[in-house]
Amino acid sequence: MTAPRHALNVTRAQDFSAWYHAVITGADLAENSTIRGCMVIKPYGFAIWELMQKILDDKFKEYGHENAYFPLFIPIDLFEKEARHVAGFAKEMAVVTHHRIECVDGKLVPTSPLETPLVIRPTSEMIIGEAMARWIKSYRDLPILINQWCNVVRWEMRTKMFLRTTEFLWQEGHTAHETEEDAREEATRMHDAYRWFICDILKMFGIPGQKPEHDKFAGAVDTYTVESMMQDGKALQSATSHYLGQNFSKAVGMTFQGRDENLHYAHTTSWGLTTRIIGGVIMSHSDDDGLNLPSAIAPYHVAIIPIIRDLAAKASVMEYCESIKNALSGSVRTLIDVKDIPPQNKKWDYVRKGAPLILEIGQREADRAIVSVIKRATLTKEIMDKDKFIGNVSDMISQHDTILQRRCQDSCAQKMNNSIKTIDEMREFFETNAGGFVVAKFNRSTTDVSALDPMAVSVRCIPTQQSGVGGKCVITGLDTDTDAVFAKSY
Amino acid sequence: MTAPRHALNVTRAQDFSAWYHAVITGADLAENSTIRGCMVIKPYGFAIWELMQKILDDKFKEYGHENAYFPLFIPIDLFEKEARHVAGFAKEMAVVTHHRIECVDGKLVPTSPLETPLVIRPTSEMIIGEAMARWIKSYRDLPILINQWCNVVRWEMRTKMFLRTTEFLWQEGHTAHETEEDAREEATRMHDAYRWFICDILKMFGIPGQKPEHDKFAGAVDTYTVESMMQDGKALQSATSHYLGQNFSKAVGMTFQGRDENLHYAHTTSWGLTTRIIGGVIMSHSDDDGLNLPSAIAPYHVAIIPIIRDLAAKASVMEYCESIKNALSGSVRTLIDVKDIPPQNKKWDYVRKGAPLILEIGQREADRAIVSVIKRATLTKEIMDKDKFIGNVSDMISQHDTILQRRCQDSCAQKMNNSIKTIDEMREFFETNAGGFVVAKFNRSTTDVSALDPMAVSVRCIPTQQSGVGGKCVITGLDTDTDAVFAKSY
Repeated sequence: MTAPRHALNVTRAQDFSAWYHAVITGADLAENSTIRGCMVIKPYGFAIWELMQKILDDKFKEYGHENAYFPLFIPIDLFEKEARHVAGFAKEMAVVTHHRIECVDGKLVPTSPLETPLVIRPTSEMIIGEAMARWIKSYRDLPILINQWCNVVRWEMRTKMFLRTTEFLWQEGHTAHETEEDAREEATRMHDAYRWFICDILKMFGIPGQKPEHDKFAGAVDTYTVESMMQDGKALQSATSHYLGQNFSKAVGMTFQGRDENLHYAHTTSWGLTTRIIGGVIMSHSDDDGLNLPSAIAPYHVAIIPIIRDLAAKASVMEYCESIKNALSGSVRTLIDVKDIPPQNKKWDYVRKGAPLILEIGQREADRAIVSVIKRATLTKEIMDKDKFIGNVSDMISQHDTILQRRCQDSCAQKMNNSIKTIDEMREFFETNAGGFVVAKFNRSTTDVSALDPMAVSVRCIPTQQSGVGGKCVITGLDTDTDAVFAKSY
Repeated sequence: MTAPRHALNVTRAQDFSAWYHAVITGADLAENSTIRGCMVIKPYGFAIWELMQKILDDKFKEYGHENAYFPLFIPIDLFEKEARHVAGFAKEMAVVTHHRIECVDGKLVPTSPLETPLVIRPTSEMIIGEAMARWIKSYRDLPILINQWCNVVRWEMRTKMFLRTTEFLWQEGHTAHETEEDAREEATRMHDAYRWFICDILKMFGIPGQKPEHDKFAGAVDTYTVESMMQDGKALQSATSHYLGQNFSKAVGMTFQGRDENLHYAHTTSWGLTTRIIGGVIMSHSDDDGLNLPSAIAPYHVAIIPIIRDLAAKASVMEYCESIKNALSGSVRTLIDVKDIPPQNKKWDYVRKGAPLILEIGQREADRAIVSVIKRATLTKEIMDKDKFIGNVSDMISQHDTILQRRCQDSCAQKMNNSIKTIDEMREFFETNAGGFVVAKFNRSTTDVSALDPMAVSVRCIPTQQSGVGGKCVITGLDTDTDAVFAKSY
């Protein structure tokens, strides 16, 4: 099938940012609300998030985590107890100061001021840590493995749908352990679970690694990240997990009686993945015709479009569509679209929505027991026997995933550069290329990375997989064995 | 089995309110947080909420509703557009006024004031209505059937875990329709879905009906409710659904082009059920030994407690426990508790947590291929052949549900009084009885019900099932056919 036109009114090459918004609008995923920086996640976008939640939630529970729910509000004085933590979030916190509104001179105004202002959680280390401090008495109470699905608020000045919004949805895992070793193992395990989710389930290109000293989570000892590459070569920090040492347990007094009968501070971790990952999926797999979705998170694997040219044929076409739907196993999410709009519009709707397989079914298909299948990943059309389609549908969905994954891998691999030795070479690379990841030498103890600022580039991570080859840090010129990934980022 | 003692340190008869908190603490469902009026829902409590969510969410989706997510914040001036709505909530709204905190004179204070203060959603009619107004162009876009699972905030002065907290979790359905008839049908359908959930799934005693004029939702034309009776005879408003007429569509300008090509305002509904229902389950079914849970929302149906008297027996006892767990079908949620605490403590833990069936398994059970089962609803113990237990477990779980339901029904039926004709008789009833529901005559158009205030009683609902018998309104003395339910309430 030759696409008669692109299904979006802007291409990636023309304007990547405008294209990103066109994909979101075209697939009806979300929209900006009238509240500055807040978005509405529409049903199709939310269905994707629900599928993501189920996959991750099952994985977390398999690892022994339990879900719970903690307050939205954090008293300002509790937040204060971990100095680096509050410093990291102070500039972006929504603060509740009143608990009533009243009409004064014909205008609604806040009244009844609070004694202690309440911050809306930007993250819950303090409030969950404080609760765990109450729960933990002895080493027998450890580990405590908690997860929470909720909304958080970070007041952002420049927002972008899914990628950076004032309110967003996420899960935040919080765990407490007897020893540093146990806590480090947990942080690493969840880091690897995120790598699995991002690379194996979402078929994205991601580099797992550690954040450099100067870019750790506020209050963490070590921060692990998966840095994904988008089609424009920019990095997206896709999920992070933190070994928090005893920083938070000391701030909230989370002690336990150890096997030696002395009191010890617990070692804690936290880890989170947000709705921004939906933005990551969009910028990893979508094309100039709209969204492409890996099958694990596709609300519909098969979208069936009945084509009814005259009312006399309606019953038999609908019956045939139903027979296809019924023959597909329950694990294949199938939709018959009976909306009262032209079939051609529906086809392009599902192209823009990224349904992996789109069937156009008219009288001809019903008469001959065939199906016309559009494969979304390649936008190719094929005529198949119905029975063959039924038998092969799982393979076709797998092929869809393989195409998405390979295409993303190949495109990103081309944008990797590991031959850069100096900051001048790096500047030239970022000036002459649309984007990409540079792997270059970096001295781990560097904290002043201002040399990168003119390029608007940052150290994304120190990848887990290291070359082991020695060289000179591109920033300090010091000898080092450490590789780091440098890129522009979202 | 004779209980050697009650598993809680206070009984219902001694102090119902203290008992309620003892059940929550004994089952480890939740705790008060350090933030005024906010609770922490602990893992066991949250597991119950997750089971509730799944059942309701499936039902909502079966009825064609789609989940979505809307902003936490509502600009104060948007809220203002529906006068009765804002009046109903103004006294209990948390207001965000600043978006930054800074250290001033060694103290953290809010800075960067907002131009327009933001209210934290106490409910989302306005914010969802405003979005729907953007989405709806023509009658072809209707109905729109949306649901949202989220947190809401209503600033409460007197709080009680689950029943009334400043922040709580809920689902809120919001729908828009072409005609009044369609919208009324939706409100009724969801009202009936709640009755089904509360009475058939949760096995509670509930009276479906309509709220009287003076107690409708702020901005509704009609409010439907299920009023459940607690063991102390008080009512709990368990879930409400509202026909909102065109009140909200007019406030937000939600118009559509009708079949007649003219512009019309949509008719809307909303309906919600909150975490307070967990409090309702507690006060419907629990006893002096702790929680009792209907099986649909029991995190574990079968709790297996290994009793290991000497280490030599450990392997065979554990193997036998595993063999029971493996023989039970996947729909029977089974736990083997391997924690390092005495078996006797574990037994009372699961009594307090309300696991329907508790197995104590030692060497004797393993040797003889038997099980010792404690049936939680009756606290009776039985020795059974393992195979018989495996074969009968589903029936035993059904019997558990039947006992809970019958016990609740019988207890509540005894506390119903429909022979009261005057306000004096009503006063006598509420003075001489611990509690209960009075069914008496009530003129629907009555708005001044202050005659009930000295009794601390309110009109709970005008039940769907009416006697049809005429009489005189207990408040106005006017002739009326209408029955209403009067009670004290949470």
